[in-house]
Amino acid sequence: VRKLKAIVYGVGAMGSIIARLLLEKDVEIVGAIARSPNKIGRDLGEVAGLGFAAGVTVTADARPVLAQCAPDIAVVCVSSYLSTMREHFRVCLEHGVNVVTTEEESIYPWTTAPDLAAELDRLAKENGVTLAASGAQDVFWINLVATLMGAAHRIDAVAGRCSWNVDDYGPEVAAVVRVGDTRAKFDRHLREHGRSDFVVRATLETLIARAGLRIGSVKSSVVPLLAEEDTASRSLGRVIPRERVLGVLDTTTIRTADGPTFSLEMAGRVYREGESDLNEWLIKGEPELHLRNDHVPTQLATCATVVNRIPDGIAAEPGLVTLDRLPQLRYRPAQLALPA
Amino acid sequence: VRKLKAIVYGVGAMGSIIARLLLEKDVEIVGAIARSPNKIGRDLGEVAGLGFAAGVTVTADARPVLAQCAPDIAVVCVSSYLSTMREHFRVCLEHGVNVVTTEEESIYPWTTAPDLAAELDRLAKENGVTLAASGAQDVFWINLVATLMGAAHRIDAVAGRCSWNVDDYGPEVAAVVRVGDTRAKFDRHLREHGRSDFVVRATLETLIARAGLRIGSVKSSVVPLLAEEDTASRSLGRVIPRERVLGVLDTTTIRTADGPTFSLEMAGRVYREGESDLNEWLIKGEPELHLRNDHVPTQLATCATVVNRIPDGIAAEPGLVTLDRLPQLRYRPAQLALPA
Repeated sequence: VRKLKAIVYGVGAMGSIIARLLLEKDVEIVGAIARSPNKIGRDLGEVAGLGFAAGVTVTADARPVLAQCAPDIAVVCVSSYLSTMREHFRVCLEHGVNVVTTEEESIYPWTTAPDLAAELDRLAKENGVTLAASGAQDVFWINLVATLMGAAHRIDAVAGRCSWNVDDYGPEVAAVVRVGDTRAKFDRHLREHGRSDFVVRATLETLIARAGLRIGSVKSSVVPLLAEEDTASRSLGRVIPRERVLGVLDTTTIRTADGPTFSLEMAGRVYREGESDLNEWLIKGEPELHLRNDHVPTQLATCATVVNRIPDGIAAEPGLVTLDRLPQLRYRPAQLALPA
Repeated sequence: VRKLKAIVYGVGAMGSIIARLLLEKDVEIVGAIARSPNKIGRDLGEVAGLGFAAGVTVTADARPVLAQCAPDIAVVCVSSYLSTMREHFRVCLEHGVNVVTTEEESIYPWTTAPDLAAELDRLAKENGVTLAASGAQDVFWINLVATLMGAAHRIDAVAGRCSWNVDDYGPEVAAVVRVGDTRAKFDRHLREHGRSDFVVRATLETLIARAGLRIGSVKSSVVPLLAEEDTASRSLGRVIPRERVLGVLDTTTIRTADGPTFSLEMAGRVYREGESDLNEWLIKGEPELHLRNDHVPTQLATCATVVNRIPDGIAAEPGLVTLDRLPQLRYRPAQLALPA
């Protein structure tokens, strides 16, 4: 076996954790890409807070690293939505480098961004590589639920509830969620710009595809979650006053053409002291089935899952490998390595 | 597509439910096998309590049905342990018929019954068919846990606790568990006969195989669970007096050669009013992960899962297909059918 070579593409909250996990799994990091001028030119270990020098300088342009270092995988953690991430994925795929990403829409973008999905699928195939997304949803909202569905004789409805802490993902995510807005400002923004379907819809559509069901109608709603008391936001470094937006509740319900209904309520908000992430599902039908994960470590689980998915991404047939097509998720106990 | 043809091999508590599920999934039942003289010669619908005639007569000898009806699958629900089930499996495999079974040791018998496992594996291969086991453990104790392990960066220990109601599985299982014994009689029987490793060990060994880890040392214990008050047993049709055996707590701990420890505590006992099955797991390591299923419908889930596994068993490479080798478990929403 030889060491696996990776690029850490994006050195924010998630990329910094992933850099540590990769090194602990004996992966060779051959490049680190960031946008922020205060990260560029510094050692990855310093930027990611590893406590030691990684011997890799953070650079702004991925091209030279992709062209010269022959990485096996680019772990891309930059932002959300395929439209935002398109160019980042393109440059990796065009250089013949496989991608795994935490970008949420990529888990199943066939209906929310079908043109971009087809374009990236084609590009990956042309270059003989794969684009695969993973994260906490791979485990908690998709594969645990799809497995539980395997205990059902007849499913009438699948209903999930989960929560995540906006403060875990840095100021950019807090801004997307509009933490700190007044109710009026939040409503006006929603009226004027709408809100793109996010992880919730892609999650449900993956579950539906895995069960061999067909999508009928899709209904989504967004409701702001207001602070009940003044609440400190770690990611924004300030206190959100009472009655301002602390987060959002995204709800999507998909009625399948085959009968069963799938719904997921996802609350993303700044937590108060002592709160932790929850994941809870109910399958109605015969029999009725329950699943609950307390204290979900969503952020670290996202990073660990993406790393555990690297061998699956490398081994998959070229193309956009959506989550319904990835094999059984596995824990990877030892070093990640490749046949020599 | 054409209808799938099945034999219901064993028409007890489980086989009776499975017969209904198969018919509801549009499977053609071409034979039903039972031992008990009061079942033989009657219609399957009557014996299984379906509320209608199934048009299939329950018979004692599987051979004529296996030879003449060309079934695609035999769903075998007779008893526990490979040593007990050997002849039942042999007769199906020798007739070139695939088997799925609720027999618990078959999920991973490579260490508890290696000679029998090898013999049945060879026989299945010679006849171009498969032998696969499933049941509630496929979902609740194995695949949910293996999936959750996929969210871990480093696992130190995997620990499960689950319970099942002895009264759900008929008088034979209650006798195996020694419900109604005095403590002294239970201890004497254990001393004289020991207790074969059961579902617990096979479950843990499947999880260990799925993670690519190696078994180090295995430690098992059995403790009787005594009635705290007089408790009615539905399966035995009598009251178990206070201080008599209501069930057993089986605990197995496996230390892997690679470090992580796997343990499972399984309590099987006669329930009091209002109790229900529980499944709860904790993964220690980085991060710490929790899973909990309340009100597990173990009996019905076992039947539904075995039926959902039929297409996997038929599609697998010939041989003994232990649970670590079966593909992702799926809900089968519509009829079970085969390409024409």
